[in-house]
Amino acid sequence: MTANTGETTLDAFHRGDFFVVQPARGGHRAGMDAMMLAAAVPGGFAGRLADLGAGAGAAGLAVASRCPAARVVLVERSPQMAAFARETIAHAQNGRVAGRAEVLEADVTLAGKARVAAGLEDSAFDFAIMNPPFNEARDRPTPAALKRDAHVMEPDLFERWVRTAAAIVKPSGAVALIARPQSIAAILVALSGRFGGCRIVPVLPRATEAAIRIIIRGTRGSRAGLAIEPPLVLHGETGHGHAPRADRVCNGRESLFGD
Amino acid sequence: MTANTGETTLDAFHRGDFFVVQPARGGHRAGMDAMMLAAAVPGGFAGRLADLGAGAGAAGLAVASRCPAARVVLVERSPQMAAFARETIAHAQNGRVAGRAEVLEADVTLAGKARVAAGLEDSAFDFAIMNPPFNEARDRPTPAALKRDAHVMEPDLFERWVRTAAAIVKPSGAVALIARPQSIAAILVALSGRFGGCRIVPVLPRATEAAIRIIIRGTRGSRAGLAIEPPLVLHGETGHGHAPRADRVCNGRESLFGD
Repeated sequence: MTANTGETTLDAFHRGDFFVVQPARGGHRAGMDAMMLAAAVPGGFAGRLADLGAGAGAAGLAVASRCPAARVVLVERSPQMAAFARETIAHAQNGRVAGRAEVLEADVTLAGKARVAAGLEDSAFDFAIMNPPFNEARDRPTPAALKRDAHVMEPDLFERWVRTAAAIVKPSGAVALIARPQSIAAILVALSGRFGGCRIVPVLPRATEAAIRIIIRGTRGSRAGLAIEPPLVLHGETGHGHAPRADRVCNGRESLFGD
Repeated sequence: MTANTGETTLDAFHRGDFFVVQPARGGHRAGMDAMMLAAAVPGGFAGRLADLGAGAGAAGLAVASRCPAARVVLVERSPQMAAFARETIAHAQNGRVAGRAEVLEADVTLAGKARVAAGLEDSAFDFAIMNPPFNEARDRPTPAALKRDAHVMEPDLFERWVRTAAAIVKPSGAVALIARPQSIAAILVALSGRFGGCRIVPVLPRATEAAIRIIIRGTRGSRAGLAIEPPLVLHGETGHGHAPRADRVCNGRESLFGD
């Protein structure tokens, strides 16, 4: 559900449990990807979570909404999108999550002292989630600068984002990310030696179609093997509505990994 | 169906379309993995195929059985297993495929001139399939030497096997392999820059259980992106019989990638 006020929209998520204020045009608009990513966090999660590249805050707030003891930090480098994230938290209808959410304007790709100086301190989080800009430059150039910022993949993107996630989560903390299947090798290489026990869920539009996204969760320092889980199938064989499990997962009623 | 004669067994595959003579004990016994791997070859395939690490020849003969114009070379380094492969081809009930199959006793991991000298010549094949030994040494030590030979993973195994596959297939030729999900990163790294357009099928025991195998097919020199296909689900929610699609795939009635 979207309420359009010209420049911005107010979008309801989780069947109206929380709302996101975001640009009507030109920016990266949050939706399904953010909801599926948030569903990778266990329902009982009660720690501090960083939403890296949070945009207007949809994924982070979805965690705060589903996990009533979770505290979330929305990390966003674009001043415009960080302003939307602040507006989202402050919105009157988000009172249930507002006290457990804050915005940190910082570039996720910073390293070392520059990262710490930007507010992303070592071992400061229990969980990091990320929806890195996934379209490589050659795929589809987008005119609007805001949109390009959120969508264009830079070289070594996963390496730099996962490096930051590994630095800021505590030992035995976790990371989850959503990306295109094409990126699986780059992601696994970046996770290697940092996060283990990785579990991958392919997201299929329909049961007979190839995956359009993958969601990966890993645990800091784990030596457990990788697992490929059954896919999340978005739609039934006919019609445009969500399949029952996808509906529950995207609306904060069920976690993606059954925990 | 197995006819056991003490030292060896005669196993029917593809509902009796062909048979495999293999050791009753101690060796790596062919079964489902070989059949699923063979199903990765398109039904209309009519070229020359190398079955790398062929054992007694099950996967290669499954291709020859399903693709009536295919010619297959069973590449096996163990003299004992190569002898079983020769016995398999010569078996009276394999007359339909015998004229299109041969054994090459050679080590797949050889490189350069040693590989060529062993009979694995550059660009000599249209397709290579492989079921590399997939259990890492620390997983489960097996006493029998033959079994260890087929099951123990050596360092850089995928790199060496895929390097050979890339060398022996023609430009625009293809490779297919079956492995454990844990090996996906090592496999994708080995394929990178050699085979593209990779398509991955996770194999699930049941629809709600994590994958026990992955099957990957790639095309030499392709620049197409990677795809994760819908899983192959082996069993229905109850009972031990095969689900209908798995039954067709494992019995040579349907290819894995719909071609």
